[in-house]
Amino acid sequence: MVSTRNPLNIGAAARAMANFGFARLAVVNPYDVAFREARSAVGAAPLLRKAEDFSSVAGAVAGCRLVVGTTSVGHRELQHPIRRLEYGARLMRRTLAQANVALLFGSEKFGLSNDDLSHCHWLMRIPTADQDLSMNLGQAVALCLYELARDSQAAAARPEKIRAATAGETEQIAARMLDALRQSGYVNPTTAASTEEKIRRLVLRLNIAARDVPVLLGMLRQILWKLDAAKDG
Amino acid sequence: MVSTRNPLNIGAAARAMANFGFARLAVVNPYDVAFREARSAVGAAPLLRKAEDFSSVAGAVAGCRLVVGTTSVGHRELQHPIRRLEYGARLMRRTLAQANVALLFGSEKFGLSNDDLSHCHWLMRIPTADQDLSMNLGQAVALCLYELARDSQAAAARPEKIRAATAGETEQIAARMLDALRQSGYVNPTTAASTEEKIRRLVLRLNIAARDVPVLLGMLRQILWKLDAAKDG
Repeated sequence: MVSTRNPLNIGAAARAMANFGFARLAVVNPYDVAFREARSAVGAAPLLRKAEDFSSVAGAVAGCRLVVGTTSVGHRELQHPIRRLEYGARLMRRTLAQANVALLFGSEKFGLSNDDLSHCHWLMRIPTADQDLSMNLGQAVALCLYELARDSQAAAARPEKIRAATAGETEQIAARMLDALRQSGYVNPTTAASTEEKIRRLVLRLNIAARDVPVLLGMLRQILWKLDAAKDG
Repeated sequence: MVSTRNPLNIGAAARAMANFGFARLAVVNPYDVAFREARSAVGAAPLLRKAEDFSSVAGAVAGCRLVVGTTSVGHRELQHPIRRLEYGARLMRRTLAQANVALLFGSEKFGLSNDDLSHCHWLMRIPTADQDLSMNLGQAVALCLYELARDSQAAAARPEKIRAATAGETEQIAARMLDALRQSGYVNPTTAASTEEKIRRLVLRLNIAARDVPVLLGMLRQILWKLDAAKDG
Protein backbone atom coordinates (compact mmCIF):
# COMPACT_ATOMS: atom_id res chain seq x y z
CA MET A 1 0.00 0.00 0.00
CA VAL A 2 1.63 3.18 -1.22
CA SER A 3 1.10 6.55 0.49
CA THR A 4 -2.08 5.44 2.24
CA ARG A 5 -3.67 8.25 4.25
CA ASN A 6 -6.42 6.59 6.28
CA PRO A 7 -5.41 4.03 8.93
CA LEU A 8 -8.87 2.43 8.62
CA ASN A 9 -7.96 1.44 5.07
CA ILE A 10 -4.69 -0.18 6.15
CA GLY A 11 -6.64 -2.07 8.80
CA ALA A 12 -9.31 -3.08 6.28
CA ALA A 13 -6.63 -4.32 3.88
CA ALA A 14 -5.02 -6.42 6.64
CA ARG A 15 -8.38 -7.93 7.54
CA ALA A 16 -9.14 -8.83 3.92
CA MET A 17 -5.67 -10.40 3.64
CA ALA A 18 -6.44 -12.61 6.64
CA ASN A 19 -9.85 -13.44 5.14
CA PHE A 20 -8.34 -14.68 1.91
CA GLY A 21 -5.09 -16.19 3.12
CA PHE A 22 -2.47 -13.61 2.19
CA ALA A 23 0.42 -12.99 4.54
CA ARG A 24 2.79 -10.17 3.66
CA LEU A 25 1.65 -6.57 3.94
CA ALA A 26 4.13 -3.85 3.02
CA VAL A 27 3.45 -0.12 3.33
CA VAL A 28 5.42 2.50 1.44
CA ASN A 29 5.48 6.04 2.83
CA PRO A 30 2.18 5.80 4.65
CA TYR A 31 0.91 8.88 6.43
CA ASP A 32 3.11 8.15 9.46
CA VAL A 33 0.77 8.89 12.32
CA ALA A 34 -2.02 6.96 10.66
CA PHE A 35 0.09 3.88 10.12
CA ARG A 36 1.46 3.86 13.64
CA GLU A 37 -2.07 4.23 14.99
CA ALA A 38 -3.39 1.38 12.87
CA ARG A 39 -0.50 -0.91 13.74
CA SER A 40 -0.58 -0.33 17.47
CA ALA A 41 -4.37 -0.40 17.83
CA VAL A 42 -5.66 -2.79 20.49
CA GLY A 43 -6.77 -5.91 18.69
CA ALA A 44 -4.74 -5.11 15.57
CA ALA A 45 -4.42 -8.20 13.42
CA PRO A 46 -1.04 -10.00 13.72
CA LEU A 47 -0.66 -9.38 10.01
CA LEU A 48 -0.85 -5.64 10.60
CA ARG A 49 1.63 -5.72 13.44
CA LYS A 50 4.08 -7.58 11.19
CA ALA A 51 3.56 -5.15 8.28
CA GLU A 52 6.85 -3.93 6.81
CA ASP A 53 7.50 -0.25 6.28
CA PHE A 54 9.45 0.88 3.20
CA SER A 55 10.57 4.26 1.96
CA SER A 56 10.37 3.29 -1.71
CA VAL A 57 8.33 1.04 -3.99
CA ALA A 58 11.59 -0.45 -5.29
CA GLY A 59 12.45 -1.68 -1.81
CA ALA A 60 9.01 -3.14 -1.18
CA VAL A 61 8.87 -5.14 -4.41
CA ALA A 62 12.53 -6.18 -4.60
CA GLY A 63 11.83 -9.89 -3.99
CA CYS A 64 8.94 -10.15 -6.45
CA ARG A 65 9.00 -11.66 -9.92
CA LEU A 66 5.83 -9.87 -10.96
CA VAL A 67 4.65 -6.40 -9.90
CA VAL A 68 1.07 -5.40 -10.71
CA GLY A 69 -0.40 -1.96 -10.11
CA THR A 70 -4.06 -1.14 -9.55
CA THR A 71 -5.79 1.73 -11.28
CA SER A 72 -9.23 3.21 -11.71
CA VAL A 73 -8.16 4.35 -15.21
CA GLY A 74 -9.64 7.40 -16.83
CA HIS A 75 -7.64 10.24 -15.40
CA ARG A 76 -4.25 9.50 -16.86
CA GLU A 77 -2.70 8.41 -20.10
CA LEU A 78 -1.32 5.08 -19.02
CA GLN A 79 1.79 3.54 -20.51
CA HIS A 80 0.96 0.00 -19.39
CA PRO A 81 -1.24 -2.82 -20.59
CA ILE A 82 -4.39 -2.79 -18.44
CA ARG A 83 -6.12 -6.02 -17.55
CA ARG A 84 -9.53 -6.57 -16.07
CA LEU A 85 -9.41 -7.99 -12.56
CA GLU A 86 -10.83 -11.40 -13.54
CA TYR A 87 -8.22 -11.96 -16.22
CA GLY A 88 -5.34 -10.24 -14.42
CA ALA A 89 -5.91 -12.31 -11.28
CA ARG A 90 -5.65 -15.48 -13.36
CA LEU A 91 -2.28 -14.37 -14.72
CA MET A 92 -1.09 -13.46 -11.23
CA ARG A 93 -2.14 -16.85 -9.83
CA ARG A 94 0.01 -18.56 -12.44
CA THR A 95 3.12 -16.65 -11.30
CA LEU A 96 2.15 -16.95 -7.62
CA ALA A 97 2.52 -20.71 -7.92
CA GLN A 98 6.27 -20.26 -8.38
CA ALA A 99 7.33 -16.86 -7.07
CA ASN A 100 6.43 -13.78 -5.06
CA VAL A 101 4.05 -11.33 -6.67
CA ALA A 102 3.37 -7.75 -5.55
CA LEU A 103 0.05 -5.99 -5.93
CA LEU A 104 0.27 -2.21 -5.43
CA PHE A 105 -2.49 0.11 -4.23
CA GLY A 106 -2.02 3.88 -4.34
CA SER A 107 -3.35 6.59 -2.07
CA GLU A 108 -7.08 7.16 -1.55
CA LYS A 109 -7.02 10.44 -3.41
CA PHE A 110 -4.46 10.11 -6.18
CA GLY A 111 -3.90 6.40 -6.74
CA LEU A 112 -0.42 5.31 -7.81
CA SER A 113 1.95 8.00 -9.09
CA ASN A 114 3.71 7.71 -12.43
CA ASP A 115 6.87 6.87 -10.51
CA ASP A 116 5.07 4.06 -8.64
CA LEU A 117 3.64 2.79 -11.95
CA SER A 118 7.09 2.62 -13.52
CA HIS A 119 7.82 -0.35 -11.22
CA CYS A 120 4.83 -2.31 -12.54
CA HIS A 121 4.83 -4.92 -15.29
CA TRP A 122 1.19 -4.20 -16.00
CA LEU A 123 -1.94 -2.76 -14.42
CA MET A 124 -5.21 -4.19 -13.26
CA ARG A 125 -8.58 -2.49 -12.99
CA ILE A 126 -11.78 -3.50 -11.25
CA PRO A 127 -14.64 -3.54 -13.77
CA THR A 128 -17.03 -1.05 -12.15
CA ALA A 129 -20.28 0.17 -13.70
CA ASP A 130 -19.26 3.81 -13.44
CA GLN A 131 -15.61 4.39 -14.37
CA ASP A 132 -15.64 7.92 -12.95
CA LEU A 133 -16.60 6.82 -9.45
CA SER A 134 -13.53 5.30 -7.82
CA MET A 135 -13.84 2.53 -5.29
CA ASN A 136 -13.22 2.72 -1.58
CA LEU A 137 -9.62 1.55 -1.00
CA GLY A 138 -10.45 -1.12 1.58
CA GLN A 139 -13.18 -2.54 -0.64
CA ALA A 140 -10.88 -2.52 -3.68
CA VAL A 141 -8.24 -4.50 -1.77
CA ALA A 142 -10.88 -7.04 -0.66
CA LEU A 143 -12.13 -7.50 -4.24
CA CYS A 144 -8.65 -8.07 -5.66
CA LEU A 145 -7.74 -10.62 -2.97
CA TYR A 146 -11.09 -12.39 -3.35
CA GLU A 147 -10.51 -12.72 -7.07
CA LEU A 148 -6.90 -13.86 -6.53
CA ALA A 149 -8.06 -16.54 -4.10
CA ARG A 150 -10.89 -17.57 -6.42
CA ASP A 151 -11.18 -21.28 -7.01
CA SER A 152 -12.81 -21.75 -10.39
CA GLN A 153 -13.46 -25.43 -9.62
CA ALA A 154 -15.41 -24.65 -6.49
CA ALA A 155 -17.26 -21.86 -8.26
CA ALA A 156 -18.60 -24.33 -10.81
CA ALA A 157 -19.54 -26.93 -8.21
CA ARG A 158 -23.13 -27.40 -7.09
CA PRO A 159 -23.95 -26.75 -3.46
CA GLU A 160 -24.85 -29.41 -0.97
CA LYS A 161 -28.55 -30.18 -1.47
CA ILE A 162 -31.08 -30.60 1.29
CA ARG A 163 -32.49 -34.12 1.09
CA ALA A 164 -36.02 -34.14 -0.32
CA ALA A 165 -38.85 -36.13 1.23
CA THR A 166 -39.46 -39.58 -0.25
CA ALA A 167 -42.61 -40.31 -2.24
CA GLY A 168 -43.95 -42.27 0.75
CA GLU A 169 -43.46 -39.32 3.09
CA THR A 170 -45.05 -36.91 0.64
CA GLU A 171 -48.01 -39.26 0.27
CA GLN A 172 -48.52 -39.37 4.06
CA ILE A 173 -48.71 -35.59 4.12
CA ALA A 174 -51.07 -35.47 1.15
CA ALA A 175 -53.30 -38.09 2.80
CA ARG A 176 -53.57 -36.20 6.10
CA MET A 177 -54.20 -32.98 4.26
CA LEU A 178 -57.03 -34.62 2.35
CA ASP A 179 -58.49 -35.92 5.60
CA ALA A 180 -58.43 -32.41 7.01
CA LEU A 181 -60.01 -30.92 3.90
CA ARG A 182 -62.70 -33.60 3.81
CA GLN A 183 -63.56 -32.99 7.45
CA SER A 184 -63.66 -29.25 6.82
CA GLY A 185 -66.14 -29.65 4.00
CA TYR A 186 -63.65 -28.40 1.40
CA VAL A 187 -64.05 -31.51 -0.75
CA ASN A 188 -67.22 -31.65 -2.79
CA PRO A 189 -68.27 -35.34 -2.91
CA THR A 190 -69.14 -35.20 -6.64
CA THR A 191 -65.66 -33.90 -7.63
CA ALA A 192 -63.75 -35.69 -4.86
CA ALA A 193 -61.54 -37.75 -7.18
CA SER A 194 -60.21 -34.79 -9.16
CA THR A 195 -59.78 -32.77 -5.94
CA GLU A 196 -57.65 -35.54 -4.45
CA GLU A 197 -55.39 -35.57 -7.50
CA LYS A 198 -55.09 -31.80 -7.38
CA ILE A 199 -54.06 -31.88 -3.72
CA ARG A 200 -51.51 -34.63 -4.33
CA ARG A 201 -49.90 -32.73 -7.20
CA LEU A 202 -49.83 -29.56 -5.11
CA VAL A 203 -48.05 -31.35 -2.25
CA LEU A 204 -45.51 -32.79 -4.67
CA ARG A 205 -44.80 -29.36 -6.11
CA LEU A 206 -43.94 -28.08 -2.64
CA ASN A 207 -40.66 -30.01 -2.74
CA ILE A 208 -40.85 -30.79 0.95
CA ALA A 209 -37.52 -31.47 2.64
CA ALA A 210 -37.18 -34.80 4.47
CA ARG A 211 -36.51 -33.07 7.77
CA ASP A 212 -39.72 -31.02 7.50
CA VAL A 213 -41.93 -34.13 7.19
CA PRO A 214 -42.36 -34.80 10.94
CA VAL A 215 -43.15 -31.12 11.58
CA LEU A 216 -45.80 -31.01 8.87
CA LEU A 217 -47.33 -34.32 9.96
CA GLY A 218 -47.47 -33.06 13.52
CA MET A 219 -49.31 -29.92 12.44
CA LEU A 220 -51.82 -31.86 10.38
CA ARG A 221 -52.37 -34.35 13.18
CA GLN A 222 -53.17 -31.52 15.55
CA ILE A 223 -55.61 -29.93 13.09
CA LEU A 224 -57.30 -33.30 12.53
CA TRP A 225 -57.60 -33.84 16.28
CA LYS A 226 -59.25 -30.44 16.64
CA LEU A 227 -61.61 -31.10 13.71
CA ASP A 228 -62.56 -34.47 15.23
CA ALA A 229 -63.14 -32.84 18.61
CA ALA A 230 -65.33 -30.14 16.99
CA LYS A 231 -67.41 -32.82 15.19
CA ASP A 232 -67.92 -34.84 18.39
CA GLY A 233 -68.55 -31.80 20.56
CA MET B 1 -29.03 -3.97 5.60
CA VAL B 2 -30.54 -5.23 8.82
CA SER B 3 -29.69 -3.72 12.23
CA THR B 4 -26.48 -2.11 10.99
CA ARG B 5 -24.59 -0.33 13.76
CA ASN B 6 -21.84 1.60 12.02
CA PRO B 7 -22.83 4.42 9.64
CA LEU B 8 -19.50 3.97 7.79
CA ASN B 9 -20.70 0.54 6.73
CA ILE B 10 -23.98 1.88 5.38
CA GLY B 11 -21.98 4.49 3.47
CA ALA B 12 -19.56 1.86 2.18
CA ALA B 13 -22.46 -0.30 1.02
CA ALA B 14 -24.00 2.64 -0.84
CA ARG B 15 -20.70 3.38 -2.55
CA ALA B 16 -20.23 -0.23 -3.63
CA MET B 17 -23.80 -0.22 -4.99
CA ALA B 18 -22.98 2.82 -7.11
CA ASN B 19 -19.72 1.15 -8.22
CA PHE B 20 -21.52 -1.91 -9.49
CA GLY B 21 -24.77 -0.43 -10.73
CA PHE B 22 -27.29 -1.34 -8.03
CA ALA B 23 -29.98 1.16 -7.12
CA ARG B 24 -32.21 0.29 -4.20
CA LEU B 25 -30.84 0.35 -0.68
CA ALA B 26 -33.20 -0.55 2.17
CA VAL B 27 -32.26 -0.43 5.83
CA VAL B 28 -34.17 -2.32 8.50
CA ASN B 29 -33.92 -1.10 12.08
CA PRO B 30 -30.53 0.53 11.71
CA TYR B 31 -28.95 2.07 14.76
CA ASP B 32 -31.01 5.25 14.33
CA VAL B 33 -28.45 7.93 15.02
CA ALA B 34 -25.88 6.20 12.82
CA PHE B 35 -28.22 5.95 9.88
CA ARG B 36 -29.37 9.54 10.11
CA GLU B 37 -25.73 10.65 10.29
CA ALA B 38 -24.74 8.59 7.26
CA ARG B 39 -27.71 9.73 5.21
CA SER B 40 -27.34 13.41 5.96
CA ALA B 41 -23.55 13.52 5.64
CA VAL B 42 -22.25 16.20 3.30
CA GLY B 43 -21.48 14.50 0.00
CA ALA B 44 -23.62 11.47 0.84
CA ALA B 45 -24.29 9.49 -2.32
CA PRO B 46 -27.75 10.09 -3.86
CA LEU B 47 -28.33 6.38 -3.37
CA LEU B 48 -27.86 6.78 0.36
CA ARG B 49 -30.15 9.78 0.57
CA LYS B 50 -32.85 7.77 -1.22
CA ALA B 51 -32.37 4.73 1.05
CA GLU B 52 -35.66 3.41 2.43
CA ASP B 53 -36.10 2.76 6.11
CA PHE B 54 -38.18 -0.23 7.24
CA SER B 55 -39.15 -1.55 10.63
CA SER B 56 -39.26 -5.18 9.48
CA VAL B 57 -37.52 -7.46 7.04
CA ALA B 58 -40.94 -8.50 5.72
CA GLY B 59 -41.65 -4.91 4.69
CA ALA B 60 -38.27 -4.45 3.02
CA VAL B 61 -38.48 -7.59 0.89
CA ALA B 62 -42.20 -7.49 0.09
CA GLY B 63 -41.69 -6.76 -3.62
CA CYS B 64 -39.00 -9.40 -4.17
CA ARG B 65 -39.41 -12.79 -5.81
CA LEU B 66 -36.18 -14.10 -4.27
CA VAL B 67 -34.72 -13.27 -0.86
CA VAL B 68 -31.15 -14.34 -0.13
CA GLY B 69 -29.42 -13.98 3.24
CA THR B 70 -25.69 -13.70 3.83
CA THR B 71 -23.90 -15.66 6.51
CA SER B 72 -20.41 -16.37 7.73
CA VAL B 73 -21.66 -19.84 8.81
CA GLY B 74 -20.04 -21.71 11.63
CA HIS B 75 -21.72 -20.31 14.68
CA ARG B 76 -25.26 -21.48 14.10
CA GLU B 77 -27.12 -24.54 13.00
CA LEU B 78 -28.63 -23.23 9.82
CA GLN B 79 -31.92 -24.47 8.42
CA HIS B 80 -31.27 -23.25 4.89
CA PRO B 81 -29.31 -24.43 1.88
CA ILE B 82 -26.03 -22.48 1.80
CA ARG B 83 -24.46 -21.56 -1.50
CA ARG B 84 -20.99 -20.26 -2.20
CA LEU B 85 -20.98 -16.70 -3.48
CA GLU B 86 -19.84 -17.61 -7.00
CA TYR B 87 -22.66 -20.08 -7.51
CA GLY B 88 -25.29 -18.19 -5.53
CA ALA B 89 -24.65 -15.00 -7.51
CA ARG B 90 -25.24 -16.92 -10.73
CA LEU B 91 -28.62 -18.12 -9.46
CA MET B 92 -29.52 -14.61 -8.33
CA ARG B 93 -28.61 -13.14 -11.72
CA ARG B 94 -31.04 -15.54 -13.38
CA THR B 95 -33.93 -14.30 -11.23
CA LEU B 96 -32.76 -10.68 -11.45
CA ALA B 97 -33.40 -10.79 -15.19
CA GLN B 98 -37.14 -11.05 -14.48
CA ALA B 99 -37.88 -9.82 -10.99
CA ASN B 100 -36.64 -8.00 -7.90
CA VAL B 101 -34.21 -9.87 -5.68
CA ALA B 102 -33.26 -8.95 -2.12
CA LEU B 103 -29.85 -9.62 -0.59
CA LEU B 104 -29.80 -9.27 3.21
CA PHE B 105 -26.83 -8.34 5.38
CA GLY B 106 -27.06 -8.60 9.17
CA SER B 107 -25.42 -6.54 11.88
CA GLU B 108 -21.63 -6.29 12.21
CA LYS B 109 -21.59 -8.28 15.41
CA PHE B 110 -24.35 -10.85 15.13
CA GLY B 111 -25.19 -11.19 11.46
CA LEU B 112 -28.79 -12.02 10.55
CA SER B 113 -31.05 -13.26 13.35
CA ASN B 114 -33.03 -16.48 13.05
CA ASP B 115 -36.10 -14.32 12.50
CA ASP B 116 -34.38 -12.44 9.64
CA LEU B 117 -33.25 -15.76 8.16
CA SER B 118 -36.80 -17.12 8.16
CA HIS B 119 -37.57 -14.66 5.34
CA CYS B 120 -34.80 -16.07 3.14
CA HIS B 121 -35.16 -18.69 0.42
CA TRP B 122 -31.52 -19.66 0.86
CA LEU B 123 -28.21 -18.33 2.15
CA MET B 124 -24.97 -17.31 0.56
CA ARG B 125 -21.50 -17.33 2.05
CA ILE B 126 -18.26 -15.75 0.91
CA PRO B 127 -15.58 -18.43 0.58
CA THR B 128 -12.94 -17.08 2.96
CA ALA B 129 -9.74 -18.87 3.92
CA ASP B 130 -10.51 -18.72 7.62
CA GLN B 131 -14.17 -19.46 8.40
CA ASP B 132 -13.83 -18.19 11.97
CA LEU B 133 -12.71 -14.72 10.95
CA SER B 134 -15.75 -12.85 9.68
CA MET B 135 -15.44 -10.21 7.00
CA ASN B 136 -15.80 -6.48 7.41
CA LEU B 137 -19.42 -5.63 6.48
CA GLY B 138 -18.59 -2.98 3.87
CA GLN B 139 -16.11 -5.31 2.18
CA ALA B 140 -18.59 -8.20 2.23
CA VAL B 141 -21.22 -6.04 0.51
CA ALA B 142 -18.69 -4.98 -2.14
CA LEU B 143 -17.69 -8.61 -2.84
CA CYS B 144 -21.29 -9.77 -3.23
CA LEU B 145 -22.18 -6.92 -5.59
CA TYR B 146 -18.98 -7.42 -7.60
CA GLU B 147 -19.83 -11.08 -8.04
CA LEU B 148 -23.47 -10.27 -8.92
CA ALA B 149 -22.32 -7.81 -11.57
CA ARG B 150 -19.72 -10.24 -12.88
CA ASP B 151 -19.74 -10.67 -16.61
CA SER B 152 -18.38 -14.12 -17.33
CA GLN B 153 -17.93 -13.23 -21.01
CA ALA B 154 -15.70 -10.29 -20.22
CA ALA B 155 -13.82 -12.30 -17.64
CA ALA B 156 -12.86 -14.83 -20.29
CA ALA B 157 -11.91 -12.19 -22.84
CA ARG B 158 -8.33 -11.22 -23.48
CA PRO B 159 -7.29 -7.68 -22.67
CA GLU B 160 -6.55 -5.03 -25.23
CA LYS B 161 -2.97 -5.69 -26.36
CA ILE B 162 -0.33 -3.07 -26.86
CA ARG B 163 0.77 -3.17 -30.52
CA ALA B 164 4.15 -4.85 -30.87
CA ALA B 165 6.95 -3.42 -33.01
CA THR B 166 7.17 -4.77 -36.56
CA ALA B 167 10.09 -6.96 -37.61
CA GLY B 168 11.53 -3.98 -39.52
CA GLU B 169 11.46 -1.78 -36.42
CA THR B 170 12.99 -4.48 -34.25
CA GLU B 171 15.72 -4.97 -36.83
CA GLN B 172 16.53 -1.24 -36.79
CA ILE B 173 16.99 -1.38 -33.04
CA ALA B 174 19.12 -4.53 -33.23
CA ALA B 175 21.27 -2.94 -35.91
CA ARG B 176 21.92 0.24 -33.93
CA MET B 177 22.63 -1.80 -30.82
CA LEU B 178 25.16 -3.84 -32.76
CA ASP B 179 26.79 -0.65 -34.03
CA ALA B 180 27.12 0.59 -30.46
CA LEU B 181 28.50 -2.71 -29.23
CA ARG B 182 30.97 -2.89 -32.09
CA GLN B 183 32.19 0.63 -31.41
CA SER B 184 32.49 -0.19 -27.70
CA GLY B 185 34.70 -3.17 -28.43
CA TYR B 186 32.10 -5.62 -27.09
CA VAL B 187 32.09 -7.64 -30.33
CA ASN B 188 35.07 -9.93 -30.78
CA PRO B 189 35.85 -9.95 -34.56
CA THR B 190 36.43 -13.72 -34.64
CA THR B 191 32.99 -14.50 -33.15
CA ALA B 192 31.18 -11.50 -34.64
CA ALA B 193 28.64 -13.53 -36.65
CA SER B 194 27.35 -15.53 -33.70
CA THR B 195 27.33 -12.44 -31.49
CA GLU B 196 25.14 -10.62 -34.02
CA GLU B 197 22.66 -13.47 -34.03
CA LYS B 198 22.64 -13.55 -30.25
CA ILE B 199 21.90 -9.82 -30.07
CA ARG B 200 19.10 -10.06 -32.66
CA ARG B 201 17.43 -12.90 -30.77
CA LEU B 202 17.76 -10.97 -27.53
CA VAL B 203 16.13 -7.89 -29.03
CA LEU B 204 13.29 -10.02 -30.40
CA ARG B 205 12.72 -11.57 -26.98
CA LEU B 206 12.26 -8.10 -25.48
CA ASN B 207 8.83 -7.84 -27.17
CA ILE B 208 9.28 -4.15 -27.82
CA ALA B 209 6.06 -2.16 -28.18
CA ALA B 210 5.63 -0.14 -31.37
CA ARG B 211 5.36 3.11 -29.42
CA ASP B 212 8.69 2.47 -27.67
CA VAL B 213 10.62 2.15 -30.95
CA PRO B 214 11.31 5.90 -31.46
CA VAL B 215 12.42 6.28 -27.84
CA LEU B 216 14.84 3.35 -28.04
CA LEU B 217 16.21 4.49 -31.42
CA GLY B 218 16.72 7.98 -30.01
CA MET B 219 18.67 6.58 -27.05
CA LEU B 220 20.86 4.43 -29.26
CA ARG B 221 21.45 7.31 -31.68
CA GLN B 222 22.64 9.46 -28.79
CA ILE B 223 24.96 6.74 -27.51
CA LEU B 224 26.36 6.21 -31.01
CA TRP B 225 26.91 9.94 -31.41
CA LYS B 226 28.84 10.02 -28.13
CA LEU B 227 30.88 6.96 -29.08
CA ASP B 228 31.75 8.54 -32.44
CA ALA B 229 32.74 11.79 -30.73
CA ALA B 230 34.95 9.88 -28.28
CA LYS B 231 36.64 8.07 -31.16
CA ASP B 232 37.31 11.33 -33.06
CA GLY B 233 38.36 13.27 -29.98
